Amino acid sequence: LPTASHLDRVEVVLVSPRNPLNIGAAARALANFGFSRLTVVAPYEPHWREARLAAQSAVGAEKLLQSAKVSESLPAAIADCTLVLGTGALTRRKPRQPVVALPALAPLVQEELSRSGRVALVFGPEKRGLSGSELALCHRLVQIPTHPRQPSMNLGQAVAVCLYELATRLAAQEASAAALVPSARARHAASSQTPSADLERLAELIDQVMLAARYSPPSMREANRRDLRLLLRRLALSPADARRALGFFRRVLFRIQP
Amino acid sequence: LPTASHLDRVEVVLVSPRNPLNIGAAARALANFGFSRLTVVAPYEPHWREARLAAQSAVGAEKLLQSAKVSESLPAAIADCTLVLGTGALTRRKPRQPVVALPALAPLVQEELSRSGRVALVFGPEKRGLSGSELALCHRLVQIPTHPRQPSMNLGQAVAVCLYELATRLAAQEASAAALVPSARARHAASSQTPSADLERLAELIDQVMLAARYSPPSMREANRRDLRLLLRRLALSPADARRALGFFRRVLFRIQP
Repeated sequence: LPTASHLDRVEVVLVSPRNPLNIGAAARALANFGFSRLTVVAPYEPHWREARLAAQSAVGAEKLLQSAKVSESLPAAIADCTLVLGTGALTRRKPRQPVVALPALAPLVQEELSRSGRVALVFGPEKRGLSGSELALCHRLVQIPTHPRQPSMNLGQAVAVCLYELATRLAAQEASAAALVPSARARHAASSQTPSADLERLAELIDQVMLAARYSPPSMREANRRDLRLLLRRLALSPADARRALGFFRRVLFRIQP
Repeated sequence: LPTASHLDRVEVVLVSPRNPLNIGAAARALANFGFSRLTVVAPYEPHWREARLAAQSAVGAEKLLQSAKVSESLPAAIADCTLVLGTGALTRRKPRQPVVALPALAPLVQEELSRSGRVALVFGPEKRGLSGSELALCHRLVQIPTHPRQPSMNLGQAVAVCLYELATRLAAQEASAAALVPSARARHAASSQTPSADLERLAELIDQVMLAARYSPPSMREANRRDLRLLLRRLALSPADARRALGFFRRVLFRIQP
């Protein structure tokens, strides 16, 4: 494997995995393809403990599981990520954000990494996949091209396939990018994205404004919260945009709060 | 997944798998990526039974496991295959035949399928991988590009990664090949390869000739048998070549047999 140098800025996030074998398999896939950053969101504690014990048989995966982060929520897990990619079968619900097929994913990730961004690849729980409000925190959805008769993949295998694809194509792209003239690369790196934590701060502020302004009837509040998060990602706000919007909505909130 | 039309001429072969979960995971990966032909060589009977029972939870994989072939040996499993691809970590031994990296595999498979060949993708047992005499039956070895610190993959994940790669790239290639003029495709399909069973028949005949001619000292007999099989594959004999060689060595054997 020609090593891709930026894989330490790719975070693999497992949301509430249930099966300890799947956690171990996911960790092993990270090690197989040269990734090192694993975050587990709200794991079921006995299974998480079991996964770390079972991993002692797989060299590489053990270290990875010991150094894995545990987050209590998805927003906390992806706080410093600038490109959040949700995975899963898209059979049950209509996607609310752009969908990218896995074979076409690497250039997007490469672009984000080349402008010093951080990428999260998020996998949902085995049975239910990512929930609507978890999906609303993703900039894009990744679709693994599977057969319509059996679209749903095993978690450990889905992680392996995604990381294989990314590692292989990023390495190939890096080899060809090395031929670029430095100035072209520098120009390319100029623009930058807003970390998820800043987007969430802005979203929470606007939530308050909506509440203070009695914008949403109670039955619509949750749906509006999600739509807002989707919108903020669709806008591709720069950090400066986000700062400006924060200042603006703080002012608005101050004015309309009773 | 844009369906690749020839996946029913790709045989996935698991040699003596030990873990029922891995057998189920492999079957599920076949179903996920539109493959339908699974052969298990010399399975450990209780685990094989367990795998078929456990599969009833995974739609698609169940049918696949029920219709899986069971072979008693690898030569029997690959008898009608014209291109046999061995997989595995190549860390322990020096490969004796050409190695192809997984991302470069699809064009080879496509070529073989386009001239009506049959392809076998062979996976060894979890702990030891394919043995020397099993590897000698492969035309080429496939290397999954993994990290040097953790090169060895879980069986179910290795199957998933290989089938994802093949299904995705074959579909893409078919889409572009559809633009070829028919005559060019016909010319391309002209040459053909020799099925493994015919190569094995020839190898066994030459084994007898070597024995009758007292060619090999007893300590070298096994190594020579392997080298012969590697040689026959390296030669890329056409079916007519193989028929001619069979006739020739039958004659030789008749002459030298006491």
